[in-house]
Amino acid sequence: MNGPYPSQLLEKAVGEFSKLPGVGRKTALRLVLHLLRQDNATVEALGESLIRLKHEVKYCQVCHNISDTERCNLCADPRRDASQVCVVETVRDVMAVEATQQFHGLYHVLGGVISPMDGVGPADLQIDSLVERVKQGNVKEIILALSTTMEGDTTNFFIARKLQGLPVKISVIARGVAMGDELEYADEVTLGRSILYRTPFESPV
Amino acid sequence: MNGPYPSQLLEKAVGEFSKLPGVGRKTALRLVLHLLRQDNATVEALGESLIRLKHEVKYCQVCHNISDTERCNLCADPRRDASQVCVVETVRDVMAVEATQQFHGLYHVLGGVISPMDGVGPADLQIDSLVERVKQGNVKEIILALSTTMEGDTTNFFIARKLQGLPVKISVIARGVAMGDELEYADEVTLGRSILYRTPFESPV
Repeated sequence: MNGPYPSQLLEKAVGEFSKLPGVGRKTALRLVLHLLRQDNATVEALGESLIRLKHEVKYCQVCHNISDTERCNLCADPRRDASQVCVVETVRDVMAVEATQQFHGLYHVLGGVISPMDGVGPADLQIDSLVERVKQGNVKEIILALSTTMEGDTTNFFIARKLQGLPVKISVIARGVAMGDELEYADEVTLGRSILYRTPFESPV
Repeated sequence: MNGPYPSQLLEKAVGEFSKLPGVGRKTALRLVLHLLRQDNATVEALGESLIRLKHEVKYCQVCHNISDTERCNLCADPRRDASQVCVVETVRDVMAVEATQQFHGLYHVLGGVISPMDGVGPADLQIDSLVERVKQGNVKEIILALSTTMEGDTTNFFIARKLQGLPVKISVIARGVAMGDELEYADEVTLGRSILYRTPFESPV
């Protein structure tokens, strides 16, 4: 559908929406026309929540997670184990790890991984501040939880080098065949690594 | 991913986004975090274009299409044939028909179809104003271009009854096997109708 827009206001709103990732002009038009059918309050709530978020959101000065305060809820929580720091790429990864309820330490949000192809170097990431955190001496273990990609591996390697000589244990999250996966469909590298890094069998009874 | 949101501002924005049709909380989070990485101007442009659209958009007093003015560009264009009126459900249908460049008349946007299941009756649609338009005497043909559903057919029937006795020709858009479709895969009703309403063969040479 490439007909001309009946209204410039409509065209402008569709244009702005279609800048979002994965939203084409057709989807944008559908969303905008949906919003036009809602009452003023709903549309204003959406528009203003975005503008407010952008203006008022803070990043935690310790772990760089998104936060409403200078120090995020996790870093400010005395029940969390400050000796373990899980290094992740993004805020979504923090939420994903938190959802497992298996980790009770703190986080460090890098803001991405080293990727020369995308023009992302170590200086664009929160690596120096991670080293600083470790140097302060409270951190006993760094758990690297980055993507299993070339970029993720490069970043792991870079961080490990930067932390060399400091009294901190460095570990990476386990890689292997996912829960519920059939062996037949696992890729060779994953399967190979899961054999290489096999763990002692624990009887469930 | 059901981890707690690290920020209430973030949670609010995700909540507002996930009210959009087809946007779940996961997609909403992805979109909002994308916007957080953009500069202020981009986010403000999106938020404000929505609020402005909602406050300033008008509906054409003649055809009820979305418009920046009291009378839409199509209705105000003297080159359009005012004797033909194509009746459609929504603004998107106007854009779809316009994109074909096969119609040079005017439109009438009903705002939906009669659907008792959804609580939409004739009074909720722009049917009375269509009858008024026809009564003014300039319209020679009404082309019904609604969905081929029970609701669309009911609405067609209702409009035809309302226009009974008025000097206007009523037609519906052709139904049949779509261009490029293989006969084998066409449903029986469509195929049956396309045989029943066959048209004279026109040699392409």
